Amino acid sequence: MSKQELPVIPSLTSGTGGTACCTPLACAPLGQAEAEELATLFKAIADPVRLRLLSLIACHEGGEACVCDLTDAFDLTAPTISHHLKVLRKAGLIDCERRGTWVYYWINPGTLERLSAILGPRVVATV
Amino acid sequence: MSKQELPVIPSLTSGTGGTACCTPLACAPLGQAEAEELATLFKAIADPVRLRLLSLIACHEGGEACVCDLTDAFDLTAPTISHHLKVLRKAGLIDCERRGTWVYYWINPGTLERLSAILGPRVVATV
Repeated sequence: MSKQELPVIPSLTSGTGGTACCTPLACAPLGQAEAEELATLFKAIADPVRLRLLSLIACHEGGEACVCDLTDAFDLTAPTISHHLKVLRKAGLIDCERRGTWVYYWINPGTLERLSAILGPRVVATV
Repeated sequence: MSKQELPVIPSLTSGTGGTACCTPLACAPLGQAEAEELATLFKAIADPVRLRLLSLIACHEGGEACVCDLTDAFDLTAPTISHHLKVLRKAGLIDCERRGTWVYYWINPGTLERLSAILGPRVVATV
């Protein structure tokens, strides 16, 4: 990420071994409200089945996957997979549409990119 | 992220509206073992207090913060803050060192960057 994209806090660039910050996590302390919202999103992905579901959907040709393909990939019941998909959808990480018999899922890139940016390269040494 | 940095899966670039993938999440389905490991890391940050602690440490001048500064920022007891710091440290998200009376904490950038990369810009339209 370019340093031009985000502001540099003067206090972080002064002194020996000064640093410049690049993302919100390091640019200003997170407030309580934003921390609670982000924690809810991270909780939604903090599960092995849900991480694998996200990856399966993202990897699928055309960027969307039928629920039938997703269920086949796990040794879990269809209701269990449905529960995990619902958690991901409620968090805004995926979206879906029914077409005939099946429901198709795709990634909502904006939500994942927001979480990625929060954790991304944050502190750049300027010594 | 440059497309040159990661391989492009041919099946994702074929057909109409083909896509090229940029990070592990979309380049190949996550295996069970990696998904479990990543879920453990995401669980460690999926908490409002721990997210705020990470942010406070990352924002602190010089990139490290005394435990005394961190405790003062919350309306929580010192043992509660210590518990959250221990969770972050056990996950490899932060590291620390005792200097005299106080313990000083800093971010372990590699772990956060790994999580950021997993969720980062993944699917690029190539139409």
